[in-house]
Amino acid sequence: MLTTIAVDAMGGDNAPAVEVEGALQAARDLRARILLVGREERIREELARQGVPNPRKQRLHIEIVNATEVITMEDPVAQAVRRKRDSSIRVAARLVREGKAHGLVSAGNTGAVMATAKLVMGTLPSVDRPALAGIFPTLKGNGTVLLDVGANAECKPEHLRQFAIMGGVYSRSILGVRSPRIGLMSIGEEDIKGNDLTKETQNLLKETPVNFIGNVEGRDIFTGDVDVIICDGFTGNVILKTSEGLVAAIMGLLRTELGQTILTQTGAILSRQAFRSVKKRLDYSEFGGAPLLGCKQICVICHGSSTPKAIRNAIRVAREFYKGNLSARIESELSEMSLARK
Amino acid sequence: MLTTIAVDAMGGDNAPAVEVEGALQAARDLRARILLVGREERIREELARQGVPNPRKQRLHIEIVNATEVITMEDPVAQAVRRKRDSSIRVAARLVREGKAHGLVSAGNTGAVMATAKLVMGTLPSVDRPALAGIFPTLKGNGTVLLDVGANAECKPEHLRQFAIMGGVYSRSILGVRSPRIGLMSIGEEDIKGNDLTKETQNLLKETPVNFIGNVEGRDIFTGDVDVIICDGFTGNVILKTSEGLVAAIMGLLRTELGQTILTQTGAILSRQAFRSVKKRLDYSEFGGAPLLGCKQICVICHGSSTPKAIRNAIRVAREFYKGNLSARIESELSEMSLARK
Repeated sequence: MLTTIAVDAMGGDNAPAVEVEGALQAARDLRARILLVGREERIREELARQGVPNPRKQRLHIEIVNATEVITMEDPVAQAVRRKRDSSIRVAARLVREGKAHGLVSAGNTGAVMATAKLVMGTLPSVDRPALAGIFPTLKGNGTVLLDVGANAECKPEHLRQFAIMGGVYSRSILGVRSPRIGLMSIGEEDIKGNDLTKETQNLLKETPVNFIGNVEGRDIFTGDVDVIICDGFTGNVILKTSEGLVAAIMGLLRTELGQTILTQTGAILSRQAFRSVKKRLDYSEFGGAPLLGCKQICVICHGSSTPKAIRNAIRVAREFYKGNLSARIESELSEMSLARK
Repeated sequence: MLTTIAVDAMGGDNAPAVEVEGALQAARDLRARILLVGREERIREELARQGVPNPRKQRLHIEIVNATEVITMEDPVAQAVRRKRDSSIRVAARLVREGKAHGLVSAGNTGAVMATAKLVMGTLPSVDRPALAGIFPTLKGNGTVLLDVGANAECKPEHLRQFAIMGGVYSRSILGVRSPRIGLMSIGEEDIKGNDLTKETQNLLKETPVNFIGNVEGRDIFTGDVDVIICDGFTGNVILKTSEGLVAAIMGLLRTELGQTILTQTGAILSRQAFRSVKKRLDYSEFGGAPLLGCKQICVICHGSSTPKAIRNAIRVAREFYKGNLSARIESELSEMSLARK
């Protein structure tokens, strides 16, 4: 049976056009079955506009599941999640809970997607707080997993310990790192550097059977020498958005400067391939969204401004997580560990 | 009388060569008088090596003040500050306290420099915690002041409120911004987004007579649309080091990719001017170190790996702070405000 992914077709800033295009790409490339969840008529129109009025005729495994409501970026999260029972994200999560899909992808309101996933799919028994895991590009080409990038603004040391386990499972199962090096984000390598949270977490991680390499700093994210970096969701989200902003600023500066003279313009044309390559390496859409680790089932959250390629890659990630049995592995490692501690 | 700046000649990773070269540049360009503080013999050797065995003969206002001890990057801060009473940083701070110099520049162990400055110069009466202020480059060319970038890992809302006032004075007096827009670093623009600290600080800032524009996010650092961003020193230090690491990674990737083919190599040569210009815009050494705001006197802290240009620019900043009467202005605004609140 094909892996089936439910895609919230109404989530992103350019929904449903981007979601439909990403789903078409995934259905073509990845041998995945996609359930496009949202306003049936809008999705049907969009499929027609993109030249696929009837996906089955083109042997694409794409189906539409109707959902009449949409949670917008402006909706107050708690209220919208509770009241909009027929929202695209809620219906998509339900499909996963009922076993009609194996995973969920959404580029919608991040808070609402997380709340819905926790509410509908549920959290794993040994997990206190699901965490959002981002991947950052590195000089060595491998990706660094950073979590939490925004699910929990306030964290306790025990939460960070669980993030270390979950990030380790991710790195091993999906990225193929045999013994992931796990670092704690702080402001100096020495144990005594940091805030109250990192100092307490230090001690906890030293007793945890993971490959804990100690404190790391912001610059270690991009070297490729650490596989998993853990931090609270406030710090992680600030890191994520600072990085996005800085990449955009540098690319903007380069574009302006390269356009200044005929000489630099010519140079830019000749070296175009190099720029493309760097841009591709830095492009978040290549990484395919951030999985919410610690739920009973698979949920991958994309940027609101995702491109079709980002949606396609998120579908790929959701499929890998399902095939890699990630939720069960996380539960088994965490429950073993808490048994060992008793 | 010339403004006199005491330079900790033994602080940085390449001391005293870099400090001596930076001091020579400053003495030539800036009409400043420099006291080079450290091991007299080493400094004398270094001056000779750089072709200035006798600065007075070349009409450069450079003098040496002997200090027999050095605090290294590895020294435990609290102990070293207490025990090494003849360290270069301690002697330099003493020169400022005694009125023999108007400001202090050091590229030494940041923790030790901050502790020494607070101990020897003292904190302003209305300031609870001095804060380190960094400047970040923006797309519009103006700089964004971010504080605290590392002096206080744990902060209370009242500390952040004081950072807002101090950052505002900096932006107005030194950067010439008439009504600095002050943002609070958080993880979403809405008031309800953030952690406990940012939520409490929000309310406090709304009652404070500054141009508070609300929550900002990591990406807002580089747009040029916010003049001062405040956060706790843990978050600020993570932002600083993440940014440094990312700039280095992008420049490294570009260098590698541009060297790949003859075509891209040729392109790189033609567009060299554009790269130089971007690098200069991103170069921290152009900004001249981070002032420690809230001390009774002027202290500017440089990166351990500072270049001579960075030292020179830090001397320029220290001089501007002294001439702008920054400490007195900070004290007057903060004390007025606390009177108004009583």
